[in-house]
Amino acid sequence: MTFVPRDPAFEARVRDSFARQRVMESIGASLLRVAPGEVDVALPFREDLTQQTGFVHAGIVTTLLDSACGYAAFTLMAADADVLSVEFKVNLLAPAVGERIIARARVVRSGRTLTVCAGDAFAVQDGRERHVSTMMATMMSVARPG
Amino acid sequence: MTFVPRDPAFEARVRDSFARQRVMESIGASLLRVAPGEVDVALPFREDLTQQTGFVHAGIVTTLLDSACGYAAFTLMAADADVLSVEFKVNLLAPAVGERIIARARVVRSGRTLTVCAGDAFAVQDGRERHVSTMMATMMSVARPG
Amino acid sequence: MTFVPRDPAFEARVRDSFARQRVMESIGASLLRVAPGEVDVALPFREDLTQQTGFVHAGIVTTLLDSACGYAAFTLMAADADVLSVEFKVNLLAPAVGERIIARARVVRSGRTLTVCAGDAFAVQDGRERHVSTMMATMMSVARPG
Amino acid sequence: MTFVPRDPAFEARVRDSFARQRVMESIGASLLRVAPGEVDVALPFREDLTQQTGFVHAGIVTTLLDSACGYAAFTLMAADADVLSVEFKVNLLAPAVGERIIARARVVRSGRTLTVCAGDAFAVQDGRERHVSTMMATMMSVARPG
Repeated sequence: MTFVPRDPAFEARVRDSFARQRVMESIGASLLRVAPGEVDVALPFREDLTQQTGFVHAGIVTTLLDSACGYAAFTLMAADADVLSVEFKVNLLAPAVGERIIARARVVRSGRTLTVCAGDAFAVQDGRERHVSTMMATMMSVARPG
Repeated sequence: MTFVPRDPAFEARVRDSFARQRVMESIGASLLRVAPGEVDVALPFREDLTQQTGFVHAGIVTTLLDSACGYAAFTLMAADADVLSVEFKVNLLAPAVGERIIARARVVRSGRTLTVCAGDAFAVQDGRERHVSTMMATMMSVARPG
Repeated sequence: MTFVPRDPAFEARVRDSFARQRVMESIGASLLRVAPGEVDVALPFREDLTQQTGFVHAGIVTTLLDSACGYAAFTLMAADADVLSVEFKVNLLAPAVGERIIARARVVRSGRTLTVCAGDAFAVQDGRERHVSTMMATMMSVARPG
Repeated sequence: MTFVPRDPAFEARVRDSFARQRVMESIGASLLRVAPGEVDVALPFREDLTQQTGFVHAGIVTTLLDSACGYAAFTLMAADADVLSVEFKVNLLAPAVGERIIARARVVRSGRTLTVCAGDAFAVQDGRERHVSTMMATMMSVARPG
């Protein structure tokens, strides 16, 4: 699907907002690609983000997927909008372990108020990717506070 | 619903596993109540876990809810089992902001292989609780790695 | 939770809309209780609605749950609104078999545009109820066509 | 993704089970394509399956998607297994109205006990397809009764 952003400055807007998500810096995540309706986020593996068996905690992978989906939706929103997560569902497919985790999100349907996004997370090891989880999310365009 | 744990030492088993979830220490979460089929987890508010508007990131609240749901399921599992998240869905109801976030989880249905859990997260401010999100999750009992 | 409907004629509005859901008559479902933020729907067991092992098909139980959740949200909407399902998730807990299935839905959070609802379906046999599935849904208030 | 069915007679097994889903005949659905990890199901539009505004009820579209996902998983299961739905989530994207609805499902991850499937429903009108909803589901392999 091809999307035409309403706001030509969509990438700067996404990168600026991502930089204000303090949790991204705290866990070491970075914003990779930003395209109309598509955003990728990456996280180098860190032992201090693992669950009891040494895999990255599903909630941390969800943090990546949620931000990737939210910003994929945000690329298509108006210049004065902000984005909120309404809901998401995640299916865990394989252990999140490797050198890093990449979350790739894309807009499935872009509406005036609601945007539906799909996101997939992959564990990268030795140049190979393994599909570790998949998200389907609803994002909402809201008036930007103040 | 009343559940009878198969393993009388369920609480020690949950507390031991939680202590090995390194992400819990990293974000500052702690395990509160552990009862048959029920687990509560708490997180003091921290600015370094927020999203772009200053609320705790939905993925971090999901991290709490996922651990609370997983350990609620784990209370009823056999002594030699481990627990894995199969899937979860989260609806975001209100901004996660306040002094701390509490996630309370309970088993809805306990099966031999799969356990369905419900979790609710509340933001606590001045002694009052606000319902900020709700999770419905499927957890799986797996053989504990050797 | 206690809700005050904006439209005092909410019950008539719900019953009128339900009567226009032709699928409800086709499968034999009926509207039971309508209260602020709460709606119950029932379906007598019918063999022509079953899946391969003789249980009511999960999609038919979902049909009940979706209508119950949608109308629970609708009780709190403005007089000139219509309701649309945004998304729902269903966990199947036990086989849907018995004399009839009852779906009970309640509003969890009522917003201006979006309403989050929870629904539970029970199979009734010999006066006893068994919890067969649970739904978490997002409903949307839209302008009523025409 | 390419899947190799364990049971070479997978197509006959799927078609036989589908024929025993009495609800499929009741609503007029038919099984189209059956391939390893992929199943398509179709439903001609019928006014007696609509909700209050004349679209096919979301629960009926879910019935199609659930059967398509379940049988996509079933193509890869052992000859003596049966399939049960564990959970599914559906996002509604556009009104389900047109000449017919097609649900296409595919396996995303095939495990020993659990299979994750994705399904998409399209409304077909004048030879054009519109994406009306998307499902992410977990299916379970169980011993076949009897």
